[in-house]
Amino acid sequence: MHTENLDAIVESIAQNYRTSPEIFFTDPDRHFPNKKNVEGILKSLRRVMFPSYFGDEAPTGAKPEYFIGEMLLRIEDSLRRELREAFLFRAGKGDEMNQIAPIAYEDVDARVEEVCTAFMNRLPEVHRILLTDVQAAFDGDPAAQSKEDIIFSYPGFFAVFVYRIAHELYVQGVPVIPRIMSEYAHSGTGVDINPGAQIDEYFFIDHATGVVIGETTTIGKHVKVYQGVTLGALSTRAGQQLAGVKRHPTIEDNVTIYSNASVLGGETVVGAGSVIAGSAFVTESVPANSRVSVSGQKICVRAPKKSAASWEL
Amino acid sequence: MHTENLDAIVESIAQNYRTSPEIFFTDPDRHFPNKKNVEGILKSLRRVMFPSYFGDEAPTGAKPEYFIGEMLLRIEDSLRRELREAFLFRAGKGDEMNQIAPIAYEDVDARVEEVCTAFMNRLPEVHRILLTDVQAAFDGDPAAQSKEDIIFSYPGFFAVFVYRIAHELYVQGVPVIPRIMSEYAHSGTGVDINPGAQIDEYFFIDHATGVVIGETTTIGKHVKVYQGVTLGALSTRAGQQLAGVKRHPTIEDNVTIYSNASVLGGETVVGAGSVIAGSAFVTESVPANSRVSVSGQKICVRAPKKSAASWEL
Amino acid sequence: MHTENLDAIVESIAQNYRTSPEIFFTDPDRHFPNKKNVEGILKSLRRVMFPSYFGDEAPTGAKPEYFIGEMLLRIEDSLRRELREAFLFRAGKGDEMNQIAPIAYEDVDARVEEVCTAFMNRLPEVHRILLTDVQAAFDGDPAAQSKEDIIFSYPGFFAVFVYRIAHELYVQGVPVIPRIMSEYAHSGTGVDINPGAQIDEYFFIDHATGVVIGETTTIGKHVKVYQGVTLGALSTRAGQQLAGVKRHPTIEDNVTIYSNASVLGGETVVGAGSVIAGSAFVTESVPANSRVSVSGQKICVRAPKKSAASWEL
Amino acid sequence: MHTENLDAIVESIAQNYRTSPEIFFTDPDRHFPNKKNVEGILKSLRRVMFPSYFGDEAPTGAKPEYFIGEMLLRIEDSLRRELREAFLFRAGKGDEMNQIAPIAYEDVDARVEEVCTAFMNRLPEVHRILLTDVQAAFDGDPAAQSKEDIIFSYPGFFAVFVYRIAHELYVQGVPVIPRIMSEYAHSGTGVDINPGAQIDEYFFIDHATGVVIGETTTIGKHVKVYQGVTLGALSTRAGQQLAGVKRHPTIEDNVTIYSNASVLGGETVVGAGSVIAGSAFVTESVPANSRVSVSGQKICVRAPKKSAASWEL
Amino acid sequence: MHTENLDAIVESIAQNYRTSPEIFFTDPDRHFPNKKNVEGILKSLRRVMFPSYFGDEAPTGAKPEYFIGEMLLRIEDSLRRELREAFLFRAGKGDEMNQIAPIAYEDVDARVEEVCTAFMNRLPEVHRILLTDVQAAFDGDPAAQSKEDIIFSYPGFFAVFVYRIAHELYVQGVPVIPRIMSEYAHSGTGVDINPGAQIDEYFFIDHATGVVIGETTTIGKHVKVYQGVTLGALSTRAGQQLAGVKRHPTIEDNVTIYSNASVLGGETVVGAGSVIAGSAFVTESVPANSRVSVSGQKICVRAPKKSAASWEL
Amino acid sequence: MHTENLDAIVESIAQNYRTSPEIFFTDPDRHFPNKKNVEGILKSLRRVMFPSYFGDEAPTGAKPEYFIGEMLLRIEDSLRRELREAFLFRAGKGDEMNQIAPIAYEDVDARVEEVCTAFMNRLPEVHRILLTDVQAAFDGDPAAQSKEDIIFSYPGFFAVFVYRIAHELYVQGVPVIPRIMSEYAHSGTGVDINPGAQIDEYFFIDHATGVVIGETTTIGKHVKVYQGVTLGALSTRAGQQLAGVKRHPTIEDNVTIYSNASVLGGETVVGAGSVIAGSAFVTESVPANSRVSVSGQKICVRAPKKSAASWEL
Repeated sequence: MHTENLDAIVESIAQNYRTSPEIFFTDPDRHFPNKKNVEGILKSLRRVMFPSYFGDEAPTGAKPEYFIGEMLLRIEDSLRRELREAFLFRAGKGDEMNQIAPIAYEDVDARVEEVCTAFMNRLPEVHRILLTDVQAAFDGDPAAQSKEDIIFSYPGFFAVFVYRIAHELYVQGVPVIPRIMSEYAHSGTGVDINPGAQIDEYFFIDHATGVVIGETTTIGKHVKVYQGVTLGALSTRAGQQLAGVKRHPTIEDNVTIYSNASVLGGETVVGAGSVIAGSAFVTESVPANSRVSVSGQKICVRAPKKSAASWEL
Repeated sequence: MHTENLDAIVESIAQNYRTSPEIFFTDPDRHFPNKKNVEGILKSLRRVMFPSYFGDEAPTGAKPEYFIGEMLLRIEDSLRRELREAFLFRAGKGDEMNQIAPIAYEDVDARVEEVCTAFMNRLPEVHRILLTDVQAAFDGDPAAQSKEDIIFSYPGFFAVFVYRIAHELYVQGVPVIPRIMSEYAHSGTGVDINPGAQIDEYFFIDHATGVVIGETTTIGKHVKVYQGVTLGALSTRAGQQLAGVKRHPTIEDNVTIYSNASVLGGETVVGAGSVIAGSAFVTESVPANSRVSVSGQKICVRAPKKSAASWEL
Repeated sequence: MHTENLDAIVESIAQNYRTSPEIFFTDPDRHFPNKKNVEGILKSLRRVMFPSYFGDEAPTGAKPEYFIGEMLLRIEDSLRRELREAFLFRAGKGDEMNQIAPIAYEDVDARVEEVCTAFMNRLPEVHRILLTDVQAAFDGDPAAQSKEDIIFSYPGFFAVFVYRIAHELYVQGVPVIPRIMSEYAHSGTGVDINPGAQIDEYFFIDHATGVVIGETTTIGKHVKVYQGVTLGALSTRAGQQLAGVKRHPTIEDNVTIYSNASVLGGETVVGAGSVIAGSAFVTESVPANSRVSVSGQKICVRAPKKSAASWEL
Repeated sequence: MHTENLDAIVESIAQNYRTSPEIFFTDPDRHFPNKKNVEGILKSLRRVMFPSYFGDEAPTGAKPEYFIGEMLLRIEDSLRRELREAFLFRAGKGDEMNQIAPIAYEDVDARVEEVCTAFMNRLPEVHRILLTDVQAAFDGDPAAQSKEDIIFSYPGFFAVFVYRIAHELYVQGVPVIPRIMSEYAHSGTGVDINPGAQIDEYFFIDHATGVVIGETTTIGKHVKVYQGVTLGALSTRAGQQLAGVKRHPTIEDNVTIYSNASVLGGETVVGAGSVIAGSAFVTESVPANSRVSVSGQKICVRAPKKSAASWEL
Repeated sequence: MHTENLDAIVESIAQNYRTSPEIFFTDPDRHFPNKKNVEGILKSLRRVMFPSYFGDEAPTGAKPEYFIGEMLLRIEDSLRRELREAFLFRAGKGDEMNQIAPIAYEDVDARVEEVCTAFMNRLPEVHRILLTDVQAAFDGDPAAQSKEDIIFSYPGFFAVFVYRIAHELYVQGVPVIPRIMSEYAHSGTGVDINPGAQIDEYFFIDHATGVVIGETTTIGKHVKVYQGVTLGALSTRAGQQLAGVKRHPTIEDNVTIYSNASVLGGETVVGAGSVIAGSAFVTESVPANSRVSVSGQKICVRAPKKSAASWEL
Repeated sequence: MHTENLDAIVESIAQNYRTSPEIFFTDPDRHFPNKKNVEGILKSLRRVMFPSYFGDEAPTGAKPEYFIGEMLLRIEDSLRRELREAFLFRAGKGDEMNQIAPIAYEDVDARVEEVCTAFMNRLPEVHRILLTDVQAAFDGDPAAQSKEDIIFSYPGFFAVFVYRIAHELYVQGVPVIPRIMSEYAHSGTGVDINPGAQIDEYFFIDHATGVVIGETTTIGKHVKVYQGVTLGALSTRAGQQLAGVKRHPTIEDNVTIYSNASVLGGETVVGAGSVIAGSAFVTESVPANSRVSVSGQKICVRAPKKSAASWEL
């Protein structure tokens, strides 16, 4: 490249750095959670909760307490470091946010300890709920050859596992980390569950790819959703003005939602025991035990097309 | 963390280990196929079948037989080890399964050799069929600049490649490994083809993401499906009682299925030459040469919205 | 394996090599771009454009010009090498293509320099447009806690970033590399944007998974699409005969398209300000400010099912 | 390469395989310890014994018992696997060896458990002795700024650490693994201590490179040796006939041996408190409190050389 | 392992942690430089100083200032972090040291900046001296085919490079890091140069392995030493009492020292232009232009030995 | 760092680039062999020659010809690439060298093929000689438990293996690559054998560290050398004027040389069957069957020292 051109391009981009502070932090003491470490916390939690499947070395039978205890201490240590980065990143930036209260620099250490303790204390209960999710998958999928299959390789279960961890941090008001977790699951499974969603036990996502569950969604017990299902919000261009408002639907107990259906809106309630057909687009509430189907499909039989080069339809 | 709290959390999780044997194998001589090795077998097969594209070192032109022979011997060696792990994992656990017969420990080695031999002998035919799939993609996608593009970078083709390998092991009754293979393709491409499906030659999945093809699906020749298509089962909460029953549809020759359509149910047959429109939800059979479209869409024109903060719809 | 069987299998596969030249290049001086290097170029560009987020070492505040200049020189160096591979791969193969003119071996070096220079000169403008995409995401998603969240973890934004880079190479007629880039984004995000599409500024893809945007699509400013949306072509089995023809729709300014909707066909125009409902299947033009919804959904309420073992629908 | 030449070279090497069974095991059920795993055991032991220095994650202060217990269980698990490989490799090959008794295949599992238990029980004592070695280095090297320096970066200490571990396995008659361990230390530090040597507490090797200590060497307490020192055997061409005979010297308490000195022979005893000068070549015993120096050095002063191109001496 | 035994071993080792604070830091806010990062600083400096040889991507010719500037900023950034760890590790521990003054916690940041600035300012001069070392190697070794050979693969040159960097930090009183650097060179080359040594320009170590140069050594210009040479101290068991005293020799200009010779003692001076023969053991000064040889070698010719099984000597 | 300082340092180093062309190649089309690839060739050759020991996957017994053939083709492919880099690096630079004839750019490809063919044809003979080296080690070391030990873990054998490969390229006049190979062995084993040395069969280096064998050394059959032995040249400051002259000794058959001895000079011949004692410094020829020992060692016994703080000697 000719140097004059190079210098001009460099200067343009450097100019963008100066005018867009969100892309270039000049603060020498910058803080941000480390993505690899956050993913490492998830992997370690998975090893503690499902020890015979993940990680090169499973615990031996002799005394699993040593394994669990050591893993938990490491998880806590790593979590503490990343929480500190996350709260310091957000410290003093409260005003542009309306969901999460600003935090003062001097309160960061106390917040970190508080969140750490609460999180660790919740782990046994999260573990218990995840075992109900395994049971729901086993009951809901005739193709599952064993519970081992589900734990080891079902992407829907992995996405729910990550959600349940991320949710515990979301309810404690932790910035950035829950999002990193949910996008980690999203990129591996195609399932995008916002950590803010509230999902009760025995939840099963079959085939997984393309499922979206929004931040203010509420889901009851024994709910089953298929690939491509959206539990979302209506669109807005109003940015953060609607943050905090309930924008996503409520799904009651024992509902089944088939592939590629969308249920949208904060006031939409799908009553208990209902079944939503595939590709349905639901923006209003339906009563309990409803069966929402799509009528209006038209079948016409025609002669085979002559020319292969034409469009098919 | 205070030690007393830590000890209590450790004890809760250890208690879950004791009551949920599926998460913690106490058997000292535990067996389970290694995920990385299974993925390695797929990568090696891809190198043998499409040698100029994958792996750091392609074979030179001089004598490709050395390359093929050496690769096949390594593949067989690695496959033998993983098959042994898979059959030993399943040995003696037959009663909770109704699809795959229980296997006695003393029969494992014979079964491994039998499967290995059958699998290796099938490779030339699998290779031949995959070349028809490349042709189908080239004929079906005007955006393909060459067959190289398809082999090297089409995720739909990669998913079909993995399916064709996994299927060969599925029909031999191999536990766990076919599922590991299909989830490997699933996580990389968003395409979830159950290894049990029967798919004939010249099959093409365009754009790939979100396609689901269930265990008992049957697909004819020259079928083309788009992203988001589900060939699935109706939902059940009955667990393994329906395992083995035909639960997924039959798609005859020369059918095209557009994006996000779902075809469900074991008795549903889509007749040869049919076209299913996007987002259609089909739970009953359609005759040959049908065109299934969705009528009932409503278009209304309205004045542009004044306030950006309102919901769009 | 018995050696006689092995030799026969080896021979079958070697035979396929001989008859299918697209799987085994016998040319000793073979050329093909390196996938890892192409992905490396994308990662380096992301570090230059959003320096505080990616890469182990962000630039310090002292003099970012050194960082930008050094990164750009490395990017150019790596790009030059891969461009050379790509043009040499395509050199002398022009006849099977109808989109991209054949190139003579002796013209490769000049073409490489021409493309390199044009690409580097476009980077400041690409950078500016990407900052409008960040703004669109921030305005369009109440769940975004900050612009940092979008840059760091929104898969829709990542897919758009990769598209904008790949598009610059596509318009210069570069073979193979734009496709490698778009499949890199596709495999990580489930979003498949063909590098040939023309997409104006302030573009936002929410939740991302399953979006497909075809090669001849045209998209205006301030367009917002949701997960599972297809902007595609009608199906054809005519292969490359339709290459170069406009096969994908035109979406005008300020359009919103909800989850899992499909808009197909090269003559289909969605007028400015329109909203397309989820799961809609649109194959004809709609005027400006239209609201396309799906009527014909049927809700029936029924008594809860008695037997869990039956199908739900 | 022309194929005919290639085939001939291949055949020559294949012929060597057939005639030299030590380079190509045709036994399908071959066994051999894994080098990486053996090195991993050493690294894990180092983490347990010097926890604040090695490994990415040191234990926290809360409850180191969890850390120690979990690490020991993993070490034992890995050691058990490698011991099994080592004994199976040696099983049935006893006749060519005269040091280590042949072992029957059916005794392997019992031997593995026996060695494992003995080894683990010795660890606290090995730990105690290593702390005396740290003290000896601190007392013996004015350049050591702290004990941390010694533990973290002295190659002589690392070589002694590996020796003390390998020796525990040597005395249990373990094949192959002690040698892998000593060569691991050798390649990293240039110190070659045969695992059979008997070395008492407070041992210090300064600067390390080039030290050799033979299999039947005996070393007392508070011995200090410098770089390049050999405690070796006289040369023989008689192969394994001398295996088991004491071939290396005895060094009593409080001896100092300077750089590049050699002390050879199984009957050579260096009496307590002696000092051996650098480059000495000692093949006979010296009494206690001896000072062995090299006389006979000649110094002559001469005029500076005129021509730079001549040899210097 | 039986749990009771395991618990006892765990308890023994935990007890050692409690009584040996140097192996287990209970301070929650522990600090220690990271070995990998320190090695990374050396690698980056090597890339800046010899850019065409090391690192995957050499700078292009266009504008090397961008490359140098960016590399230096990264080096400074990384160095600053590790210096901070090193000074914090040492802070408040001054009393057990007699060489390096204690440092107060509140002075750490100022010291870090001071050292950083001094170090960066010295780099051009260090670069200049290293180019004299390359020249000395080229003049001193007829086997060097080019200067490229020396820079790229001579271990003696690498050890001198690392020494010259480490020395700059040593003279600034930096703890731990200079030692990590010198042991990095030591483990790769077998050359142990204490960072405290003072070595003038045009220094050449041929063949390298086994050379030791002590902390208080002084070396003039144009000195050449061969493999196995020790410039050391007399032995002491007095620990740190002799720290800071000149314990190693002075080598004046134009001296050559042959393989495996040792020159010991703080008052020993080897006069300019002298040559020391191989294996010499020098503990007293020699005047300028001396030739120190070892007389007293005895050659006797004897009949070939009959029996191969006897010792050779 | 203050920017003004930074800019000045950058400028100093950039100035060094301009004045020292050996550190910064401005040639845009620069060539240099890749170190990692050269090491990879050695590893692959080791796998072919000792297949059951190295590499993750050993060949199975079924048909090793596939393994050998495929490995050889890959080795040749990789060697060809690196040879091309090496000859292009040297092309047109012949005048500063007096050993290796200059090579014209247009002759590079022919030279590469010539060297490749010669090298591959020599492999069976090199293999045969290496098996004699294994035998010599087994006969010469009572501590070797088996030939497997020698092949798998003796550093002296590894150094000889690398030398025998590098020598084959040296005699063909290949630039740079032989040196990269010998330094690879040197850094791992501490043995520095110049690829130009001529070493006959049944050669054994025991314990290895510190051995140096110069470029014009000649060694007969059944020679055994110990750690620290130098077969070197007398020192010179005359640079390349002596390149090509025989500067290193000749060692005849059946000679044994003990630890740390040096034999120097091109006219020095050690007659067949001789034994050289440790630390001897030999610069003149000795007749056949000589025993060269060092007399003149002095032993004095003295009272134990009182004060620990004094120097020991």
